Amino acid sequence: MQKLRIGLAQINPVVGDLKGNARKILATAARAEKNGTNLLVFPEMVLTGYPPEDLLLKPSFIRDNLKTLDKIRKEIRSPRMVTLIGHVDQKRNIHNAAAVIYKGKIVATYYKIYLPNYGVFDEARYFQPGYKPMVLKWGEMGIGISTCDDMCYPEGSGYQVALSEAEILVNLSSLPYHVGKSELRERIFATRARENVAVVALCNLIGGQDELVFDGSSAIFAPTGEVIARARAFEEDLLIADVDLEQVFHQRLHDPRFRQERIKKPVQEMDIVQLPALSTRGSRPGALKKRVEPIPDEREMILKALILGTRDYLKKNGFKKVVIGLSGGLDSSLVAAIAREALGPVNVIGVGMPGPFTSTATRRDSKKVAENLGISFLEIPIKSIYSAYLEGLADVFKGMRKDVTEENIQARIRGDLIMALSNKFGWLVLTTGNKSELATGYCTLYGDMAGGFAVLKDIPKTMAYEIARLINRKAGKNLIPKSVIERPPTAELRPGQKDQDSLPPYEQLDQILKAYIEEDMDPEKMIKHGAKAVTVKRVIRMVDKSEYKRRQAPPGIKITPRAFGKDWRLPITNRY
Amino acid sequence: MQKLRIGLAQINPVVGDLKGNARKILATAARAEKNGTNLLVFPEMVLTGYPPEDLLLKPSFIRDNLKTLDKIRKEIRSPRMVTLIGHVDQKRNIHNAAAVIYKGKIVATYYKIYLPNYGVFDEARYFQPGYKPMVLKWGEMGIGISTCDDMCYPEGSGYQVALSEAEILVNLSSLPYHVGKSELRERIFATRARENVAVVALCNLIGGQDELVFDGSSAIFAPTGEVIARARAFEEDLLIADVDLEQVFHQRLHDPRFRQERIKKPVQEMDIVQLPALSTRGSRPGALKKRVEPIPDEREMILKALILGTRDYLKKNGFKKVVIGLSGGLDSSLVAAIAREALGPVNVIGVGMPGPFTSTATRRDSKKVAENLGISFLEIPIKSIYSAYLEGLADVFKGMRKDVTEENIQARIRGDLIMALSNKFGWLVLTTGNKSELATGYCTLYGDMAGGFAVLKDIPKTMAYEIARLINRKAGKNLIPKSVIERPPTAELRPGQKDQDSLPPYEQLDQILKAYIEEDMDPEKMIKHGAKAVTVKRVIRMVDKSEYKRRQAPPGIKITPRAFGKDWRLPITNRY
Repeated sequence: MQKLRIGLAQINPVVGDLKGNARKILATAARAEKNGTNLLVFPEMVLTGYPPEDLLLKPSFIRDNLKTLDKIRKEIRSPRMVTLIGHVDQKRNIHNAAAVIYKGKIVATYYKIYLPNYGVFDEARYFQPGYKPMVLKWGEMGIGISTCDDMCYPEGSGYQVALSEAEILVNLSSLPYHVGKSELRERIFATRARENVAVVALCNLIGGQDELVFDGSSAIFAPTGEVIARARAFEEDLLIADVDLEQVFHQRLHDPRFRQERIKKPVQEMDIVQLPALSTRGSRPGALKKRVEPIPDEREMILKALILGTRDYLKKNGFKKVVIGLSGGLDSSLVAAIAREALGPVNVIGVGMPGPFTSTATRRDSKKVAENLGISFLEIPIKSIYSAYLEGLADVFKGMRKDVTEENIQARIRGDLIMALSNKFGWLVLTTGNKSELATGYCTLYGDMAGGFAVLKDIPKTMAYEIARLINRKAGKNLIPKSVIERPPTAELRPGQKDQDSLPPYEQLDQILKAYIEEDMDPEKMIKHGAKAVTVKRVIRMVDKSEYKRRQAPPGIKITPRAFGKDWRLPITNRY
Repeated sequence: MQKLRIGLAQINPVVGDLKGNARKILATAARAEKNGTNLLVFPEMVLTGYPPEDLLLKPSFIRDNLKTLDKIRKEIRSPRMVTLIGHVDQKRNIHNAAAVIYKGKIVATYYKIYLPNYGVFDEARYFQPGYKPMVLKWGEMGIGISTCDDMCYPEGSGYQVALSEAEILVNLSSLPYHVGKSELRERIFATRARENVAVVALCNLIGGQDELVFDGSSAIFAPTGEVIARARAFEEDLLIADVDLEQVFHQRLHDPRFRQERIKKPVQEMDIVQLPALSTRGSRPGALKKRVEPIPDEREMILKALILGTRDYLKKNGFKKVVIGLSGGLDSSLVAAIAREALGPVNVIGVGMPGPFTSTATRRDSKKVAENLGISFLEIPIKSIYSAYLEGLADVFKGMRKDVTEENIQARIRGDLIMALSNKFGWLVLTTGNKSELATGYCTLYGDMAGGFAVLKDIPKTMAYEIARLINRKAGKNLIPKSVIERPPTAELRPGQKDQDSLPPYEQLDQILKAYIEEDMDPEKMIKHGAKAVTVKRVIRMVDKSEYKRRQAPPGIKITPRAFGKDWRLPITNRY
């Protein structure tokens, strides 16, 4: 047999929901079987959801995951389909594992070899590494199994597997999205396909989990590196494709490097699992249309990540509706537009909370945004509450000047009011601050930072503008009013206040922030690249000094290569 | 030479303060030299402070730490003293390292072999492991070097080093405190001394760093396991002691196990560094008095950890004064008493913020606490602000019953007021919530949780009572009034409210929390141990559902084996 029907089951599990995930796995396996799939691949740790973090320290959790796997394997009995399911295994040690299920049995279990322990990953905290590549021999075919990082290095297990026994390299992944990641991922896997003269099939997770969004886009690569099938981005999908191994066998025959290496370089210890030849009894479903879903443009991907991340955080945590403080500014308008896409307009409530320094124009715009989006709108003025605070503090503050204290009081009244709505009605509060603000500390703890989920937490201000424009372009009209986009940003907490009084222009600021936060660039290098020394120093100081605020910020969606979440672990007490 | 004067330089560095730490190191080295020290040991990564976390991802940080080390080594020129300094090294890889300085030169650099990546530790995120034990040969003596975890396993580098070449095993440590840790640590190091028939000298860090407190208590162990010298707990100290190796040489001669193993079991590759024989020119300071500081009683240690953790967080972050909301309840009274010990009464401000449900008794007690402690006291009633909120929300809440919303509003007004004081006067807000509350979510986000540092974050309520009683006992009078300790706990946010209306009795609750949080115990096992099934389920549900609150809590001092900090990484989105 040189032809194989591969299914990539890119599903959206919920962390810890073993029963629900099992149901989803079984339903997808049944569909795949019906469609004549021979080799069905689920994502890495699909059974537990990814990443389960310290749930992995609970013995009962690992036990229950194994019990659930045992139920699943009994239900997948097809003699024509091998199924790979990512889960957690525990024998002597605990492993990030892939179970190979065939005819109702677990015929083998692969252990991930390369455990990522950088960025958002802590896998060395939980797992012992595997040490043996694994090949399933199925008739004359060899199927090499690997998990995520195992295929990210030229010397990874894919390499060794292919050089000896495998024509198909299968990879179970749970790779979180960030800007530029899809392209990078496809380049890596295409390279592995070419290097090894093998078909590479990558099944990647989709869905939102706290601060992470997984984008799917599972794909199959020909030995030339060409993508011959691709699943949808940011959506559940079952991608089924026929793969012809003729090309692999043929090309390898004529590749001297290949034959020689195989002789000269003994491959390390390897698990070879022999499966009985594929049954071909019964009717076989007909040929499939080739399906290569496009990879969306990067801005489009960011928007999709924001929508899916918001929707999944709500849904998976049992919330239906959100409430958003609408100031008439860009960020809150953008969050409202994203929430409407994620949840539908009936599930989004906007609240205007005009204060003593709110202008008529922004007040009008906040209503306009709600109107344009078709969401509910409430208005609760804060003036009399603000006066009550000032009165309450009058004695203590006697003789002192107004300063940021009074600005923060206004922001915190708004925080309290929106939390009151959340408490009373069960709506989740979406905060509206962006990454530029959170980086520099240009935000009020317990004020505008108060809420359950920070949609734009990892979106720099300049990127927020781009996404807002994209939304308007897609809608074919100004859902987010032009005046909102064009007005100079202001917090309206004192007369005539503008963001640019306290911050460098956003174009400059965001460049420095990217260099400092995402690239760990030395200040000297930034200055060499053209940034002003005084601005660089000032911005870095702002970032360092605001660590304490970020530590108390709500979670939000990781979009850039380095977000203020698990991939940013700076001490608060820090004199460097 | 069979006699050696060892110095353990247990100092308190600041993370990132390379210059300041260098100054402290040099001053201590000068003192040690003057006292005739031959072997001076500083703690693990003392130069950078520990843990520097993601500062280690900045190339400039590692470079600057190496430049600083280079300045230090030039200043330590004594021909009679070898000095070990923990720092970060980078050659091909980045290592947790110990520099061996002798006569103004770095004569060797040891790399930590066992990198902890559990609990609060993420060392695999930053470092590559070393692979070779190191022995300094100094005349006929062998000095084995190891760092922290390297000596925590019987097969660790201490073992291999001792069996071949070293009579003294030196360990540079930065071991954070938790309840029971000192005892455990001494048991481990004493065991290593006995197993290896060697003198073990452990230098441990002291000081507070964000959520961690290091307790010092550096010690020297005889080959019998006996502690022959110990530095102070929770204080900087330079412990200098004379060590006679006669016992080691003698006992090894008569230990067949020792001689045989040395022949049978070849030791792995090892760095042997030959130093010129010790210079004995010049006058030698006289004999030293043996100093074995006591290890305080566990309750006393907890109190010391709270005081040092609070003091260092303030000092190292540039704060002088704190403000504390005094409710007349146990927790806030206890925090005020701790703050007074840490900072002195003039630096502590108590604020009473009586609300509509505050009783005369608690109101009186809050003033009484301030009086007893000799701290300032302000009172700002919240009633009229509360009314302003209710009025502002009247329309939106029309026809709805009062519920937890109105309780939270009161808590948040207090949060806002105390933050306003913080903003206006530059005082840091100490929050007063305890671990039992934070675990069960019995606290208000942005309300009583609002503040910069949570002193009791890892103190269960039952432990808070014990510490309060200890403080009174030590003072010889009721600093914390008897009425405060004896009144049933209440949040006073609705008429007649008691904690025990919403929570199981604290004795039961804290037992379940300990099993669940610190021991990852399965619920079935807790029930087998005597807990009520319905209570266990209810408590676990409360803990799981409050993850989102904890994520936005301020940092606080780790006291138990597992705190809600870096050693607790549970997903918010979690259906298990």
